[in-house]
Amino acid sequence: MAAAKLPTITAFASSPDRGRGLARDMRVRWALEEAGQAYAVRLLSFAEMKQPAHLALQPFGQIPTYEDGEVVLFESGAILLHIAGQHGGLLPADPAARARAISWLFAALNTVETPIIDVQNARIFEREQPWAEARLPLVIERLDKPLAALAAHLEGRQWLDGAFSVADLMMIGVLLRLKPSGLMDPFPAVCDYVARGEARPAFRRAFAAQLAVFEASQQAASR
Amino acid sequence: MAAAKLPTITAFASSPDRGRGLARDMRVRWALEEAGQAYAVRLLSFAEMKQPAHLALQPFGQIPTYEDGEVVLFESGAILLHIAGQHGGLLPADPAARARAISWLFAALNTVETPIIDVQNARIFEREQPWAEARLPLVIERLDKPLAALAAHLEGRQWLDGAFSVADLMMIGVLLRLKPSGLMDPFPAVCDYVARGEARPAFRRAFAAQLAVFEASQQAASR
Repeated sequence: MAAAKLPTITAFASSPDRGRGLARDMRVRWALEEAGQAYAVRLLSFAEMKQPAHLALQPFGQIPTYEDGEVVLFESGAILLHIAGQHGGLLPADPAARARAISWLFAALNTVETPIIDVQNARIFEREQPWAEARLPLVIERLDKPLAALAAHLEGRQWLDGAFSVADLMMIGVLLRLKPSGLMDPFPAVCDYVARGEARPAFRRAFAAQLAVFEASQQAASR
Repeated sequence: MAAAKLPTITAFASSPDRGRGLARDMRVRWALEEAGQAYAVRLLSFAEMKQPAHLALQPFGQIPTYEDGEVVLFESGAILLHIAGQHGGLLPADPAARARAISWLFAALNTVETPIIDVQNARIFEREQPWAEARLPLVIERLDKPLAALAAHLEGRQWLDGAFSVADLMMIGVLLRLKPSGLMDPFPAVCDYVARGEARPAFRRAFAAQLAVFEASQQAASR
């Protein structure tokens, strides 16, 4: 019997986060590690991401994508849902619990990540703008509402809803983008939750894999 | 045989958009109309949305939620995916096409809606701020990238990928929030696409239903 083709994902050849695990391929790597699924990675330069070959897979010219023998996917949310559907242990079997987990997956992307992107834009892309300092408190106020709701929900809970699921993986993946800013610190229940995610062996393997890509890109550049 | 319990959704008792169909219950109403599924609506005041009874269904205190005999869901993305899974005609049966549709559903929420929320914050919540005018071009630049990619993809297409699906419903639902700003106008392929969505009978029924709720709230207030 021929070996099944490995799922292939795309990632930055040289990640702008310098290997800190904040690019969106990290979520997909982590899910594949949790599932015990080996995978291949196709690395793309910024120029390659805007070429027709990649735009045919990802119309917005971003990473990650996911391809296996059957499907081609883009958007980390769609990819995680697909991986969770194919492998056990990432989504509950009970329909009511599964529905709650999928709700939390969307909440991570649409309710929690939206103000985090706003903070990131304010702190990084607009940092030299004359309004940067005066505007930041407004942006933080919009962020604190969902963080406070999440912290209240997490009180006394290990994960979002019973056992670890793909919803936790996405929520923690989203929160990791906020962690370097220090803006998560007023919410210790959220910080502890993120730390529990980072301590998982599958997270560590995924983190090491993306870091190795960045380090190799630096070595290649310095040769 | 007892009648099956109708799915129940939640919506604003008095929508801040004044019945323009921009609140997120509109997407759910539209999907239920496309599916030919009757539904009940529970209207909530802003105070009720922050009460424990609603927070148990929606931890962030928002609308919409969706309940049927089997599941309780929050987040419009999760609700639309559930409705599409239960009824024919909203997601292709072929696994590869279904995967593409789900990718587009997530793209609507995480790639297209994110900069639209940013524009909305800039134009509405920050309109009186001293930086409002100087900052707007930056926000529009971040919006124009995904809109240009979407316009390029839609060239020569009726819908995102073959037949109308829940991905179109979500994408058009998201774009409707941008329409009043005029910032969609430089992308005629996107405007035409949104107009095709608005012309669907199911859209019109859903729009009329949410408008009727707002009009009733105004009459009650003026009594």
